[in-house]
Amino acid sequence: MSSPSPALKSTLLSRRDLDFQLYEWLRLDELTRRDYFAEHSRDTFDAVLDLCEQLATRYFAPHNKKSDAEEPTFDGEKVTVIDEVKQALDAFADADLIGMAMDSSLGGAQLPTTIAQAGFAYFAAANVSTAGYVMLTIANANLLARFGTSEQIDRFVRPMLAGRFSGTMALSETQAGSSLADILTRAEPQPDGTYRLFGSKMWISAAEHELTDNIVNLVLAKIPGGPPGTKGISLFIVPKYLVGEDGSLGERNDIVLAGLNHKMGQRGITNTVLNFGEGRFRPGGRPGAVGYLVGEPHRGLSYMFHMMNEARLGVGMGAVALGYTGYLKSLQYARQRPQGRPITAKDPTAAQVPIIEHADVRRMLLAQKAYVEGGLGLQLYCARLVDIGRSADSDAERQAASLLLDILTPIGKSWPSQWCLAANDLAIQVHGGYGYTREYDVEQHYRDNRLNPIHEGTHGIQSLDLLGRKVTQHGGAGLAELGRVIGETVAAARRAGGEAAELADRLDARWQRLVTITGELFADGDIEAAMANSVTYLEACGHIVVAWIWLQQLLACGDRDGDFYAGKRQAARYFFRVELPRTDPQLDLLAARDRTALDMRDSWF
Amino acid sequence: MSSPSPALKSTLLSRRDLDFQLYEWLRLDELTRRDYFAEHSRDTFDAVLDLCEQLATRYFAPHNKKSDAEEPTFDGEKVTVIDEVKQALDAFADADLIGMAMDSSLGGAQLPTTIAQAGFAYFAAANVSTAGYVMLTIANANLLARFGTSEQIDRFVRPMLAGRFSGTMALSETQAGSSLADILTRAEPQPDGTYRLFGSKMWISAAEHELTDNIVNLVLAKIPGGPPGTKGISLFIVPKYLVGEDGSLGERNDIVLAGLNHKMGQRGITNTVLNFGEGRFRPGGRPGAVGYLVGEPHRGLSYMFHMMNEARLGVGMGAVALGYTGYLKSLQYARQRPQGRPITAKDPTAAQVPIIEHADVRRMLLAQKAYVEGGLGLQLYCARLVDIGRSADSDAERQAASLLLDILTPIGKSWPSQWCLAANDLAIQVHGGYGYTREYDVEQHYRDNRLNPIHEGTHGIQSLDLLGRKVTQHGGAGLAELGRVIGETVAAARRAGGEAAELADRLDARWQRLVTITGELFADGDIEAAMANSVTYLEACGHIVVAWIWLQQLLACGDRDGDFYAGKRQAARYFFRVELPRTDPQLDLLAARDRTALDMRDSWF
Repeated sequence: MSSPSPALKSTLLSRRDLDFQLYEWLRLDELTRRDYFAEHSRDTFDAVLDLCEQLATRYFAPHNKKSDAEEPTFDGEKVTVIDEVKQALDAFADADLIGMAMDSSLGGAQLPTTIAQAGFAYFAAANVSTAGYVMLTIANANLLARFGTSEQIDRFVRPMLAGRFSGTMALSETQAGSSLADILTRAEPQPDGTYRLFGSKMWISAAEHELTDNIVNLVLAKIPGGPPGTKGISLFIVPKYLVGEDGSLGERNDIVLAGLNHKMGQRGITNTVLNFGEGRFRPGGRPGAVGYLVGEPHRGLSYMFHMMNEARLGVGMGAVALGYTGYLKSLQYARQRPQGRPITAKDPTAAQVPIIEHADVRRMLLAQKAYVEGGLGLQLYCARLVDIGRSADSDAERQAASLLLDILTPIGKSWPSQWCLAANDLAIQVHGGYGYTREYDVEQHYRDNRLNPIHEGTHGIQSLDLLGRKVTQHGGAGLAELGRVIGETVAAARRAGGEAAELADRLDARWQRLVTITGELFADGDIEAAMANSVTYLEACGHIVVAWIWLQQLLACGDRDGDFYAGKRQAARYFFRVELPRTDPQLDLLAARDRTALDMRDSWF
Repeated sequence: MSSPSPALKSTLLSRRDLDFQLYEWLRLDELTRRDYFAEHSRDTFDAVLDLCEQLATRYFAPHNKKSDAEEPTFDGEKVTVIDEVKQALDAFADADLIGMAMDSSLGGAQLPTTIAQAGFAYFAAANVSTAGYVMLTIANANLLARFGTSEQIDRFVRPMLAGRFSGTMALSETQAGSSLADILTRAEPQPDGTYRLFGSKMWISAAEHELTDNIVNLVLAKIPGGPPGTKGISLFIVPKYLVGEDGSLGERNDIVLAGLNHKMGQRGITNTVLNFGEGRFRPGGRPGAVGYLVGEPHRGLSYMFHMMNEARLGVGMGAVALGYTGYLKSLQYARQRPQGRPITAKDPTAAQVPIIEHADVRRMLLAQKAYVEGGLGLQLYCARLVDIGRSADSDAERQAASLLLDILTPIGKSWPSQWCLAANDLAIQVHGGYGYTREYDVEQHYRDNRLNPIHEGTHGIQSLDLLGRKVTQHGGAGLAELGRVIGETVAAARRAGGEAAELADRLDARWQRLVTITGELFADGDIEAAMANSVTYLEACGHIVVAWIWLQQLLACGDRDGDFYAGKRQAARYFFRVELPRTDPQLDLLAARDRTALDMRDSWF
């Protein structure tokens, strides 16, 4: 067992680790005992993962560098994207993967979200930009499947599942990025029940291209006369081309591409500025982009948050995937690159050793392993909560899963965005100068991953969501539920005894302290001081949660021998020895309700 | 004083801060009492800084984005660099800045290195790639001025000072990056006392271009028959064109550009693969690149380390400069960008506030301020040690300065490379989505800065230098000297009382613990276990040293009022409250001589 396992031949993800996490730890095969997933078995799960790995390797990975070097161009009329992107999207759609996790009643495969996410991770690892087109389409389709009318589903969702249409989510505007309350795009009701939209959107990924026959934009806008702020936001389907009742494509809608944004990374996916209602296209002879209301007026943001939460976990998984592939590539490099000699054997005439023999290189690899396998575990755990909710046969089970998912979502989005980016940083460092060149892959992963702490709610926004909402809402029920499941793991580890019990004590001490501090933070009503530390709270909570994920993985190893389990145990040790203690000074700051940033004044900078 | 100070109008560096650090803290004007600097005054220092800011703003900053977007190209014959680079280099040379810090006997201005470094920081902030050509030329000229013959100085150094020639340092080879012992380039002695070089060099910046009449490569090579390893390395001048005794340019030397490396950042400076002795050019009709030995055979690495140490501090200052300009740009952005409303005032119809009013944005700005002003202080402090050494009138003073500079050099290189990169990361985050686009500057600063933990000795190499050499050599005299000067600051802070005394206690506690741990690390002779934690040691030591720098700056504020001093105090508080405590878990790991990475096995990954 001392030779590298065959799974490591793939530098996208480790299938051995995926299998461990899905089956030995999360026991995903047990989901198939539930009615909702009864059509499935581990065999179908495995077949899907095999397919995803194959397609990602064959159609997504090969053009990853090319789509970075040759980003989409706009000549004022048309956006050109390299051909390989369409081939990849077609291969994905032809394999019926867009509906992987959707209800079979809609033509989906009704697979667990956990399997769909694991499968999707292969595509994100292979080419996060091309995978982005798919992710947005899936999230869009899921939203409409839930909140759209059956007619909207027929007209827009089914073509998305077939790969003929693709989807976007159009929230932000130039003056309204994090602050959606301030959007200005307006939707004017028409006598026929449709709306006409006027305004501009910023940062909209995948909203212009020729990759699909049509683009289904989900657009937030305000119906004049509605309440101010977020309570007056409605959601509209605004397709690039109008769609007839028979599904045929009609007139071009009044949406104009004002320009493309040029990013540091994730360059392969178009990122657009869109103008609605400029009148350059005039459907029915009149200006204004034709839109169809989704659900009820003024409830758009709550519908969009359904998509946003899914997108946030998707962002987290994308960050994990980029971290994971960077880890595997730097591991491969460290095994092959000779440089230097052991610290205690400096005979300059001896052959150089592979750099993995240097302790500091192993440190950088072990840190990456701890981040990416911990991050993967976090994302799969969250996805499994979605599946439990989907298949629960009691409201109590559904509610418990929902509470837990709610409180874990900002962590599932932000933790991998921070630490799997840190993994990419280490992957570059392992490669040395080579890692800084575009000849190798890791610098692109680092650039690509840097988007993740920004989009779908910045790091700061996630921290406000966690501390300002998820922790306090429902009388603290989310935090209590998280405490309950952490307590279960701690109890199991104590029963297991030995090292697991020792690590459980360390986890429990931090968790209990966090709970105590959480109560004290708001005790005197100084919300400003409490919230000024929200990012510290998010980061401390995130590290404690991932320590818990690692303890679960350690327990799942049982007493099995072999390199794989030895590696899992060592990574768990690393996390508890090196990472978890980072939370102590953070908890000190929280306990003191540190005012340093709050007290800083503009004029002092 | 509540309006932004005029100095902030420049987004390169804050002149107000430079003035504070140079005069109110480091009392650089006192250097002019020494004979060596007696020709100078604060007036000449100020004039140089003014000039540097002007030239950097006028000639370096404007093409920073262009030199990133249009990187140098190689058509197989010639390297093309955008015209603006030559204009900038000519402006720099025409202003006689290359010899800023060189002896007047060589035609230099004999300015303090501290002033030269501060002035250079403007250029690095404006355009780190174009400034790189200058930095290498200066370092090359300094080395030859010290170790070259007077004939070599006349032939190569004087044209560099005049800007007609430029310089490089050619150490690395494909198989020998961090491990210089393994270089293979050989230098064959010729009857006329010259050498002929054969071999290949990798990662050589600025080694091919048409920006100057000639390129002076300083090349490490082995003379056949010498000792193995680093003890057999010699140093050679290998110019692109041979130079006649009258200084006229002669034949093309036998150096061929094998290709350019394409990097993630710092794209404006060529990075080359060079082949020596391929025979495509045949000076004197024979293959082999003509080289001139510098100093004695086999002592080349020690000469090169003179240049390397200077280059390492130059890298640190470059990292500071990139961090600093990113900080000022994100500060400017945060003052101008309206988004959201105060956490306690959520009326959605009220106007949005500038994001600097959000505590978390101020946190990100304050962290940047603490990193870049702390990093600048570290670099200026190190540069001042060079000046004390240059102007000392006793051996004891010179030796003390040299000991301190030796132990601070790996920190001066690595700390800004890590934390001013972290500042750039925060600068992107303050900009939100805009910061991720190439329309703004900060994403490029982040990419540019990512090189700094790699070149001129990686982060890991710096850690081995610190713990494996600088801390232990001369019976621990370097660490003792550092302890002595830290002790002076602690004593002064205790005398000052109040907050300074309190911070001094916190600093002293960590420093004393580090000293104790350092002694224990090697106590049982398990060098492997000690050195496996070298990066943790480097990082803990670096943070403690920068806390000391901040305490010095706090003391330099005295009891003066005003926004500037209030900001300094708040940044010092930030560093002590948020940053210094990060060292506690690091010190715990060192105290335990953590074996987690050391015990990890290749087969467990």
